[in-house]
Amino acid sequence: MIPRYSRPEMVAIWSPETKFRIWYEIEAHACDAMAKIGVIPAENAAAVWKAKDVEFDVARIDEIEAVTKHDVIAFLTHLAEIIGNDEARFVHQGLTSSDVLDTTFNVQLVRAADLLLAQMDKLLAALKTRAMEHKMTVRIGRSHGIHAEPTTMGLTFARFYAEMDRNKRRLQVAREEIATGAISGAVGTFANIDPSVEEHVCEQLGLTPEPVSTQVIPRDRHAAFFAALGVIGSSIENVSTEIRHMQRTEVLEAEEFFSAGQKGSSAMPHKRNPVLTENLTGLARLVRMAVVPAMENVTLWHERDISHSSVERNIGPDTTITLDFALARLTGVIEKLVIYPDNMLANMNKFRGLVMSQRVLLALTQAGVSREDSYKLVQRNAMKVWEEGKDFKTELLADEDVLKALSAEEIEEKFDLGYHTKHVDTIFKRVFG
Amino acid sequence: MIPRYSRPEMVAIWSPETKFRIWYEIEAHACDAMAKIGVIPAENAAAVWKAKDVEFDVARIDEIEAVTKHDVIAFLTHLAEIIGNDEARFVHQGLTSSDVLDTTFNVQLVRAADLLLAQMDKLLAALKTRAMEHKMTVRIGRSHGIHAEPTTMGLTFARFYAEMDRNKRRLQVAREEIATGAISGAVGTFANIDPSVEEHVCEQLGLTPEPVSTQVIPRDRHAAFFAALGVIGSSIENVSTEIRHMQRTEVLEAEEFFSAGQKGSSAMPHKRNPVLTENLTGLARLVRMAVVPAMENVTLWHERDISHSSVERNIGPDTTITLDFALARLTGVIEKLVIYPDNMLANMNKFRGLVMSQRVLLALTQAGVSREDSYKLVQRNAMKVWEEGKDFKTELLADEDVLKALSAEEIEEKFDLGYHTKHVDTIFKRVFG
Amino acid sequence: MIPRYSRPEMVAIWSPETKFRIWYEIEAHACDAMAKIGVIPAENAAAVWKAKDVEFDVARIDEIEAVTKHDVIAFLTHLAEIIGNDEARFVHQGLTSSDVLDTTFNVQLVRAADLLLAQMDKLLAALKTRAMEHKMTVRIGRSHGIHAEPTTMGLTFARFYAEMDRNKRRLQVAREEIATGAISGAVGTFANIDPSVEEHVCEQLGLTPEPVSTQVIPRDRHAAFFAALGVIGSSIENVSTEIRHMQRTEVLEAEEFFSAGQKGSSAMPHKRNPVLTENLTGLARLVRMAVVPAMENVTLWHERDISHSSVERNIGPDTTITLDFALARLTGVIEKLVIYPDNMLANMNKFRGLVMSQRVLLALTQAGVSREDSYKLVQRNAMKVWEEGKDFKTELLADEDVLKALSAEEIEEKFDLGYHTKHVDTIFKRVFG
Amino acid sequence: MIPRYSRPEMVAIWSPETKFRIWYEIEAHACDAMAKIGVIPAENAAAVWKAKDVEFDVARIDEIEAVTKHDVIAFLTHLAEIIGNDEARFVHQGLTSSDVLDTTFNVQLVRAADLLLAQMDKLLAALKTRAMEHKMTVRIGRSHGIHAEPTTMGLTFARFYAEMDRNKRRLQVAREEIATGAISGAVGTFANIDPSVEEHVCEQLGLTPEPVSTQVIPRDRHAAFFAALGVIGSSIENVSTEIRHMQRTEVLEAEEFFSAGQKGSSAMPHKRNPVLTENLTGLARLVRMAVVPAMENVTLWHERDISHSSVERNIGPDTTITLDFALARLTGVIEKLVIYPDNMLANMNKFRGLVMSQRVLLALTQAGVSREDSYKLVQRNAMKVWEEGKDFKTELLADEDVLKALSAEEIEEKFDLGYHTKHVDTIFKRVFG
Repeated sequence: MIPRYSRPEMVAIWSPETKFRIWYEIEAHACDAMAKIGVIPAENAAAVWKAKDVEFDVARIDEIEAVTKHDVIAFLTHLAEIIGNDEARFVHQGLTSSDVLDTTFNVQLVRAADLLLAQMDKLLAALKTRAMEHKMTVRIGRSHGIHAEPTTMGLTFARFYAEMDRNKRRLQVAREEIATGAISGAVGTFANIDPSVEEHVCEQLGLTPEPVSTQVIPRDRHAAFFAALGVIGSSIENVSTEIRHMQRTEVLEAEEFFSAGQKGSSAMPHKRNPVLTENLTGLARLVRMAVVPAMENVTLWHERDISHSSVERNIGPDTTITLDFALARLTGVIEKLVIYPDNMLANMNKFRGLVMSQRVLLALTQAGVSREDSYKLVQRNAMKVWEEGKDFKTELLADEDVLKALSAEEIEEKFDLGYHTKHVDTIFKRVFG
Repeated sequence: MIPRYSRPEMVAIWSPETKFRIWYEIEAHACDAMAKIGVIPAENAAAVWKAKDVEFDVARIDEIEAVTKHDVIAFLTHLAEIIGNDEARFVHQGLTSSDVLDTTFNVQLVRAADLLLAQMDKLLAALKTRAMEHKMTVRIGRSHGIHAEPTTMGLTFARFYAEMDRNKRRLQVAREEIATGAISGAVGTFANIDPSVEEHVCEQLGLTPEPVSTQVIPRDRHAAFFAALGVIGSSIENVSTEIRHMQRTEVLEAEEFFSAGQKGSSAMPHKRNPVLTENLTGLARLVRMAVVPAMENVTLWHERDISHSSVERNIGPDTTITLDFALARLTGVIEKLVIYPDNMLANMNKFRGLVMSQRVLLALTQAGVSREDSYKLVQRNAMKVWEEGKDFKTELLADEDVLKALSAEEIEEKFDLGYHTKHVDTIFKRVFG
Repeated sequence: MIPRYSRPEMVAIWSPETKFRIWYEIEAHACDAMAKIGVIPAENAAAVWKAKDVEFDVARIDEIEAVTKHDVIAFLTHLAEIIGNDEARFVHQGLTSSDVLDTTFNVQLVRAADLLLAQMDKLLAALKTRAMEHKMTVRIGRSHGIHAEPTTMGLTFARFYAEMDRNKRRLQVAREEIATGAISGAVGTFANIDPSVEEHVCEQLGLTPEPVSTQVIPRDRHAAFFAALGVIGSSIENVSTEIRHMQRTEVLEAEEFFSAGQKGSSAMPHKRNPVLTENLTGLARLVRMAVVPAMENVTLWHERDISHSSVERNIGPDTTITLDFALARLTGVIEKLVIYPDNMLANMNKFRGLVMSQRVLLALTQAGVSREDSYKLVQRNAMKVWEEGKDFKTELLADEDVLKALSAEEIEEKFDLGYHTKHVDTIFKRVFG
Repeated sequence: MIPRYSRPEMVAIWSPETKFRIWYEIEAHACDAMAKIGVIPAENAAAVWKAKDVEFDVARIDEIEAVTKHDVIAFLTHLAEIIGNDEARFVHQGLTSSDVLDTTFNVQLVRAADLLLAQMDKLLAALKTRAMEHKMTVRIGRSHGIHAEPTTMGLTFARFYAEMDRNKRRLQVAREEIATGAISGAVGTFANIDPSVEEHVCEQLGLTPEPVSTQVIPRDRHAAFFAALGVIGSSIENVSTEIRHMQRTEVLEAEEFFSAGQKGSSAMPHKRNPVLTENLTGLARLVRMAVVPAMENVTLWHERDISHSSVERNIGPDTTITLDFALARLTGVIEKLVIYPDNMLANMNKFRGLVMSQRVLLALTQAGVSREDSYKLVQRNAMKVWEEGKDFKTELLADEDVLKALSAEEIEEKFDLGYHTKHVDTIFKRVFG
C-alpha cells in the first residue's frame, strides 16, 4: 500500500485491530453455536462475550506471537488473558486456524467490496450528472485519433456510465462469490465440529457457508473477485485516457480542475497537466497486476498449502485500497472536469466541413448518382478544402454537378449537426432509463 | 492455435466460412430492417437472401481483398457478384465495418461459450459420477503435502464439482455479457442508420443491442469474458495438479487411464506418466495468458482505434479452442481415472495411527486432563511410533496415564474412520442437492 | 500464429520440415560422436548420413505417430524406412526424446533470434536515417501531453534508436542464453551416453553444452528469452504510441505513409488513420503475454514434467513470428513516415511564445529580480497571451518593468530556438558515436 | 510491502530519509558542477554542503508539501531553511524534478541490486556446500513425478546452483542497465543545464549519464530490470517446489529445518510442514507480478507523462524488498535443510529394481537380442515384480532366456548405482569449475 494512494476507511478494514475483532467474533459466535448443541458449556460461551467491547492489544499479541510463532494461538492466548484461562478453554475447539483466517479474509473482502460499491455509486452519479449537462454538447467523434463524424460529450459520459454500471454489477457478483465462510475443521470434513457451528457463524457475519471446503475456502472465488477488480481498473484507465487526450494542448476540450492556488498556473497558463488521470493510468496497472497471481493461487496442493497466503497478504489490502482511492480520485476528476464546448466546435471545424464528406457521398448515391461518380464529386471538392483551405460546403454549393443531384437546401441540410444528435435521446434512454 | 490441442467444432466457429456467413446474415437482416422502415426498397432487401444457401468463396474474397485492402469491402464485392450489383447496392448502407466485425466477434464468442458450457456439463457429470462412486473411499487429507486427517476421495471430486459448477455460472454470466450487437454506424450515433435496424439484427442473431456503443462495442465486456475463461483455466490446473500428485510413484492413489496398447507400459509398469494432466497444466497457462491483454484492450482512443484487433484475432480463437480442448481432455481424464483405494489406505497407515494424534489430544482435554498434560501424554506415545516404528493405538492402550483418562473403548473409538466421514452426506447434499 | 501477421522466413523455422531436419541432424551427429568413441560401429554412423539430402515425409511421420502416439519414435521409424532398419539400429541410442526436443527447440529459438536481430538492424538503420534527416527539425517537447519546451524530431528518433539498440543487446544476451544443447540421457546423468556426444552435437549445431541438465534444459533460460522479447514488444508500443499521437488530427506532425491507391484517401483527405501503429500496439500485447507463462514454466517437478511443453508449442512460434512481423512493420512505418515540419512549427506557436515563459523567468531571476517578482512579471504578461490572444514576446518588450531587468536584445534571445538545440550534437554523438 | 516479509537493510533504501539524502546529493553535486563552469558562484555551491551531515526533517518536508503540493519544491524549501535562503538560491537551477526523481530511483534500484547480489552470493554458497556434501547421495530421478533412473542429490543442488548463478549474471546485467542518471533539464535537451553537470553528478553517484533522455530516463531499462527479478522469482519457486515435493509425507527425502521449540512438533512428529518453501512459492508470484506493469510503463506520451510513477512507487520497494527477503529465506532453507539419504534409497527401491529395466533392455539389445525380443524378456520379468511383488534382479537371474544373452555378472552390473553416478564429477566440474 502506498499511503498517498489510500483512504482511511479502506485502510481500516485491513488493520490488525479489525482483523482481531473479526477473529474474536468468529470464535465467540462459534462458542455460542457449540453451546447451543451442548458441545461446550453455555457459561463458557457466554464468558467469551466479556471481551465484546475490549480493544485488543495488538502489541501484546505480537509479543506472544514472537514466542509461539503462530498468530492465531497468540491471539487466543491474549483472549484468555482477558476473559480468563478457564473461561477460554473451549474457545477454538474443533476449529483450525484456516477456519478463522479464511473466513476473516472473506469478511474483509466483502467489506472492501461494499466500500468500493458505495464509491462506484458516487462515480456513477458524477458521470450521469456530466452526461446530462453535456448531452447535446457537440464534439467531433474520432476513430484512430482522426476526426470522423460528430457526436456529443454527453454520449462520452454516457458510455463511461454504462461501462462503470456493468462494472458495478460485476463487483456485486464478485462480492456474492466471496461472501462465504468455512468453519469445517481440519481438511474440511466437520469431523471435529458440527456443521451447525459454521451455519451460525456465517449467519452472524453475513456470509453463506462454503458448500464444500477443504482446510481452506476454494480460491477460484478469490480469483474471480480480483479479476472483477482488474476489469474495473481497466475501465478506469479507459476513462482516464480519454481525459488525457482531451486535455492535450492541441485538443484542449477539457481540463482536470486546477485550483487557483496551485503553483505555476499563471506564469505558464497553458501548462495544466492531467496529472490525476495519468496517475490513474498507473493505478489501473497496479490493480490489474493482482489478477494473474490471484489465478495462480487457485491451485493448492491437496487439502491446502499456504502458497496463496503471502500473495493475499499483499493483494488483499493493496488492490482494494488502490482501487478505492482510484475510484474516488476519478469521481473527483469527473465532477470537476472543466469542459470547453467552444474548443470542441473549433476542433470540429478544423477541416472546414470535411467531416461531412461521408454524408454528402451518401446523399449523392441516394439521389441516384452512381457510387463512382458520387465519389469523384466529393473528392474534387474535398481536395480543394484540403489543399487550398477552402470551405467544403461553399465548394459544394458552387459545384454544378453536385447541384444537379442535390439542391442547395439539401446540401445545407447535410451540414446540420442535428442530424448527428437526433438519436442521443434514444441512447440516453437506454442507458439511464 | 495448436492443431493437436483443438477440436473441430470449436475450430469451425473461427473459420473464414463461418465468419463470412455471420457477416452475410448481419447484412441481410439489416436490409430487412431498413426495408421495413422504408429506407431501402423491399425488393433489394429480399434479393440479398438469394445468397442464403451459397457457400461464400473464401479464395475469391481474399483475391478481392488483396486489391481493396479492406476485408469488409472485399466481402461486399463478392456478395454483389452473387446477388447482382444493382440488387446489392443498398447492402451495408449506413453501417460501418465495425458494426459487422464487432457484432460477428460477439456471435462467435457466444457460440464458443455455448460449446464450452456444453463441455462443462460433461465434465460436471463426470465429476459427479466419480464423486458418488468414491463418496466413502477413505483417503488421508493432506495439508502442506503432509498427512493431516482422513477425508474421502468423493469429497475431492465433490469440491472439484462445486468449483467447476461455479465456473459454469461464471461462464454463463460472461456469455450474457458478450451477447450484444451494435449496428450504430460511424462513432455510434445512429446518424446514418435507424436504431430499429440494430434491434432487428440483434434479435435475429440472439443478441441484445449494445445500449451505447461508439464505433465499437465496449471492450470491458470482452475483458470480463476472457477473465472468466482464465479462472476456468486456473481450476483446470487445480484439478490436474491433484491428479499429478495422486499419480506420483510414492503416492499412487490414482492413475490416468493407460490404454493397453500404449508403448512401454509393461516393461516399465511403474512408468505411467500423468502426461494428460501435465499437459493441462500448460494449457491452463495458455488460457490464462489472454486475460491481461484482454484487459489492456479496454482502453481505446476516443470513439475507436484498432489496437485491440490484432489481440482479438489471436485470443478469440486460441483461447476458446484451447479451453475447449482442455475441458474435453480433463473430462476424459476424470471419467477414466483409475483409482486405488487400497493404496489410499496403505498411505494413510504409513505412520501407524499418528494421524489420529490430534483426536486423542482433544479427547484427553475433554476428559479433563489439562492441555499441557494431554500434550505430554500424546507426545510420549507419538515419539515411540515415530522413532521406534511402534503402533500408536497399541501404545496408547498400554499407557496407564492415558487409560486413567480414556477407556480402551474410548481409545479404540478415536481410530474409527466413521468419525471422519460422518458429515460426508451433509456436504454432498450441499453440493449435489 | 495469425497468417496476416507473419513472414515466411520466420514461419519456416517452425515448420515440421525444419523440426525434423534438426532432429535428424542431432541424431546423425550423435551417431558420429558415438562412433568416434567406439560405442557404435562407424558404418552405422555413416549410414545415417544417407538421408542427408532427403526431404522427410511429414505426412508419413504423422501416420506413424497416429499409431505409436510418440513423435520422436515416429520420426525414428521413418528414418529407418529411409536408411534401412539395420543401419538405423543404433540411432538415438542412449538419448531421450527430451535431448532431441529441447536441443531442437533451442536451435529454433537461436535461429529466430538471428532473424529478429537482422530485422532490428534494419529498424535501427531506419531510425538513424530519420534521426539524421530531422536532427534539427524543431518541434515542441511535451510533458503530460502539454507543451513544454522545444526539442527536435531528430532527438525523438535518436531516443528510439538508443532504446532499440539496448533491445538489440538484450536480445543478443538472450540469444546466447538460449544457445545451449543437452544430450545427457534420462534424468541428465550421462549414464547411458558419453558427455563427448553432447559436446560434438552442440558444436555442430552452434550451441554450448548445457552445464547441468536434468531430462530437460532448465527453463529459466527460456523465461529470460521471452522476457527480452517482451521488453522489445513494449518498446515497439512506445514508438507506435508516439506516432499515433503525431498523426492525430489536431497534431498532424507526421503520418504513416498512405499509398496513392488506398481507398478513401481523397474523399476524406483528413481521414488517414495510423492503422499500422495501432496494429503494432496490439501486437506488442501479444508479444508481452508470453512472458508470464514462460516464467511459470520455470518450475518443473523433479527431473522433468511436460507442463511447459504445450506452452512452448504456442509461444515458441507465435511470439517470435509476431515480433518478427512487428519489427518489420515498424521498420516500414519509420522508413516511410511522412513528417510535417511546418505543422510542428505551427503547433509550437499555438500559444504565441508562452512555451518560453520558463526561460524568461530564469533570465529575470538571473538578472537579479527576486523569484517572486520575476514570477509576477512573467505571469502578468502570460495572462494577456492566454486570455487576450496577445503575443508573449511583444508583451514583454512592452513591459517596462521587464525592460528594467532585461534588454530588448536579451528578450529577443530568449525566443531563439538555437538555445534549445545547442546540445543536439552532443546527444547525437552519445547515441550514434 | 508486508513487514513480515522484509529485511531492514532493503527497507532502508526506500525510506524517505534515504530518498531525501540522495536528492540532496544530486543537488549538491549539480551545484559543484555548475560552479566549476562558472554558471553559479562557487560559494553558493560550497554552502550547499553545509547540510552534509544534517538529517533531513521528513515531517517538516511533509508539512511544506501539504502546502506546495510538490515534493521536490518542499524539499528544496526545507533545504533552504537549513543552509539559508540566499545561499540556496542557485540550487536546482536548470534541473527539472524528473532529473532528481529519476536519478534517485535508479540509485535506489542499484543499491537494491547490490543487496540482492550479495544475498545471491550467500545462496550460491549454500547451494554449493550442500551440493558438495551430497554429491554422491544417490536418489531416484523422476520424470512426471514417476521414478525414472537414479541421480544424486548433489546434482539437484548443482543445477539449482547453476540456475541461480545464471540469475546472478542476469541481475548484474540488469544492474548495469539501471545504473544511469539524467540531469538534462526539461524535455532532455540540456537547454538550461550543461551536459557536464550530468556527467559530474553521475560520476559522483556511480552512474553513467543516460545517452539520450527526455524529461525522463527511458523505462525499457526498468522493464528489463524487473523482468530479471521476475526470472529470479521463478527460479525461487522452482527450488521451493522441489523441496515441497521432497518433504511430502510419502516421499520424505528432506525437511525444512524445524527448531526443537516449534510448537506441535512432537505430538504429531510427522506434521512438519514445508511452510517456508510454500511461502516462497507465493512470494515468487509477488515478485513476478511486477513484470507486466513494468513493461506497460515503457510507453510514455511524448517527452514524459507520470503514468509510470504510481506503479514504480509500489513495485520499486515492494518487489526488491520481497525478493531480498525471499532470497534470504531460501538461503536459510538450503543451509539447514535436513536430508534423509536412507529414505532416498528406500524410495528408489520401492519397485524392487524396476527402475533398472531400461538399462537391462539396452544391454539385451546390445548383446544382440532383437529389440522386440528384448522388450518381451524385460516385460515378463517386470510384470512379476509389478504384480507379484518379486525382485527384478532375482527374476532376471532366474530367467534362462535372459541368461542366454547376459551373464549373471552382467546382470548384477546393471544394478550397480555407480553406472549412474560415473559422470557426476564431469558435471560438477562444469558447474563449479
